[in-house]
Amino acid sequence: MATPTRWGILATGGIAAAFVSDLALLPDAEVVAVGSRRLDTAQAFAAERGIPRAYGSWAELAAAPDVDVVYVATPHAAHHAAAHLCLSAGKPVLVEKPITLDRASAADLVATARERGVFLMEAMWTRALPAIRRMRELVADGAIGEVTAVYADFAISGPFAPTHRLRAPELGGGALLDLGVYPVTFTHLFLGVPSRISAMATLTPEGVDENTAMTFGYDSGALAVLHCGIVGGSPVSATVLGTRGRIVIPKRFFGTTGFTLVRGGESEEMTFPRSGNGLAFEAEEVMACLAAGRTESDLVPHAATLDVMGILDEVRKQIGVSYA
Amino acid sequence: MATPTRWGILATGGIAAAFVSDLALLPDAEVVAVGSRRLDTAQAFAAERGIPRAYGSWAELAAAPDVDVVYVATPHAAHHAAAHLCLSAGKPVLVEKPITLDRASAADLVATARERGVFLMEAMWTRALPAIRRMRELVADGAIGEVTAVYADFAISGPFAPTHRLRAPELGGGALLDLGVYPVTFTHLFLGVPSRISAMATLTPEGVDENTAMTFGYDSGALAVLHCGIVGGSPVSATVLGTRGRIVIPKRFFGTTGFTLVRGGESEEMTFPRSGNGLAFEAEEVMACLAAGRTESDLVPHAATLDVMGILDEVRKQIGVSYA
Repeated sequence: MATPTRWGILATGGIAAAFVSDLALLPDAEVVAVGSRRLDTAQAFAAERGIPRAYGSWAELAAAPDVDVVYVATPHAAHHAAAHLCLSAGKPVLVEKPITLDRASAADLVATARERGVFLMEAMWTRALPAIRRMRELVADGAIGEVTAVYADFAISGPFAPTHRLRAPELGGGALLDLGVYPVTFTHLFLGVPSRISAMATLTPEGVDENTAMTFGYDSGALAVLHCGIVGGSPVSATVLGTRGRIVIPKRFFGTTGFTLVRGGESEEMTFPRSGNGLAFEAEEVMACLAAGRTESDLVPHAATLDVMGILDEVRKQIGVSYA
Repeated sequence: MATPTRWGILATGGIAAAFVSDLALLPDAEVVAVGSRRLDTAQAFAAERGIPRAYGSWAELAAAPDVDVVYVATPHAAHHAAAHLCLSAGKPVLVEKPITLDRASAADLVATARERGVFLMEAMWTRALPAIRRMRELVADGAIGEVTAVYADFAISGPFAPTHRLRAPELGGGALLDLGVYPVTFTHLFLGVPSRISAMATLTPEGVDENTAMTFGYDSGALAVLHCGIVGGSPVSATVLGTRGRIVIPKRFFGTTGFTLVRGGESEEMTFPRSGNGLAFEAEEVMACLAAGRTESDLVPHAATLDVMGILDEVRKQIGVSYA
């Protein structure tokens, strides 16, 4: 058995808890420390999960010599500061999605990681799921011919109070960053960067998007038709259409364990093993990269992260949302 | 039993055959004549279906005194001429969808019908389906709260040869009129006329749309996200999202016999009787209107037909498609 990878957890919210829970499924992973702006919060998180050490600052966690990699699990408005701190301390990081609020700050993290020769990956777990990886292989192998369109939706039921994080511009609130990043990432997996982007949205009184439609056009002639929102729940489905068939994920596409391949009137169900909350696959990818001395993942490359952030920037510009 | 309604069929293609087949399911319907530009074609159609008379011109059919109503089943580029001829002869008409190539010519038919006091209805059979009517009732009654979004797709597999009707601008080719009219109509049923329209498309070398995305925005804040195409087959699904639930039709929404109502994590399947090709319901509506001396249907009112044609006009303008 390989030497365990020693994880440090930065922040103590729901996604941090889910990630720690999934790390427990991996024999090669060990959680050695947690860091938070508040020591008591870090201590409570550590005590509940049997984590050896708790720090009352991010800097202490970033400096801890026995931490091999830090998982940045703050709300996304704090991702840049937290990840930059870790990278500057020479610490590899896995940063929750979306990696930052915009492409420029994401590019800054990528530049910092490259300058320091330190590993950086966005925790876009969808890209690491076995079902999604198999879908990409099938599509790349021509299983559905040329891709003609992608549909994806991720909308959740409201209402959210005006004071909720999801309605706060300064926290990157609205549907786009929290939910829209998934349909956009899913589309990017199969079609890359669009040559045309058109977006339409309804904004909350606070000025963030509560209902957003996106259409992307590609030089191949393909189109993507996407929706995200925080006012009414959607099936959370995704479909890739091709000239010779289609692949459908009817629900919760971004964490899926399977899909349906439809060709010539025949439907074939493909299922893949489930694992906890689905976050172990990205953790395994991080550990494989670290073990190989790599500073970037092929599954979640820096370029893909920057592509998606650039698309979100353009959508945001068109719908008139600003997080400043 | 009521006096049978005596139908005349104008044109002899696939949809005419399907409609005559469905009329046979209705005891109060009788097909007494068929008219075509070619007498031999009309005669062959009549002979195969036991229709008493065949005419070698539309005008003869329009003038036949024992024909109560004419069903115009030509390709859509000929709808206006055929329907206008019938209306001018004082004959009630049911006109295959889309009613014409654009709103102006549709408005001309409506004006002609109103001037003459003659019945006119677009054969938008989706509006007359029991499942769709029940969906509208449920949504109107607040079963899913306020409508926040509508999704609908209708894309079919190609390739179609350059000489195919679907690629001929002068015949109203492309995805929009043949297929897109259904997603647009479905959306109109629940959201009416949008205040904002955005469309993006890929065109064939002939200049008609082969892949089209449409986003509509409404004053309520709702959005519609729609797709049609002739290069890759879609699920042909539709979803209405609301603040308290959603209604999903997973396949062939425009001819559906049922749907799923999702509320609070519970799914309820609702199914309705099937009837032939699904065209008998619109035929029954026509006969009920005629029996009541009405010149317009509440299920497929002139205003709805004009609304949809106006939306299609705007989409077409944005994507740069012209049928002239």
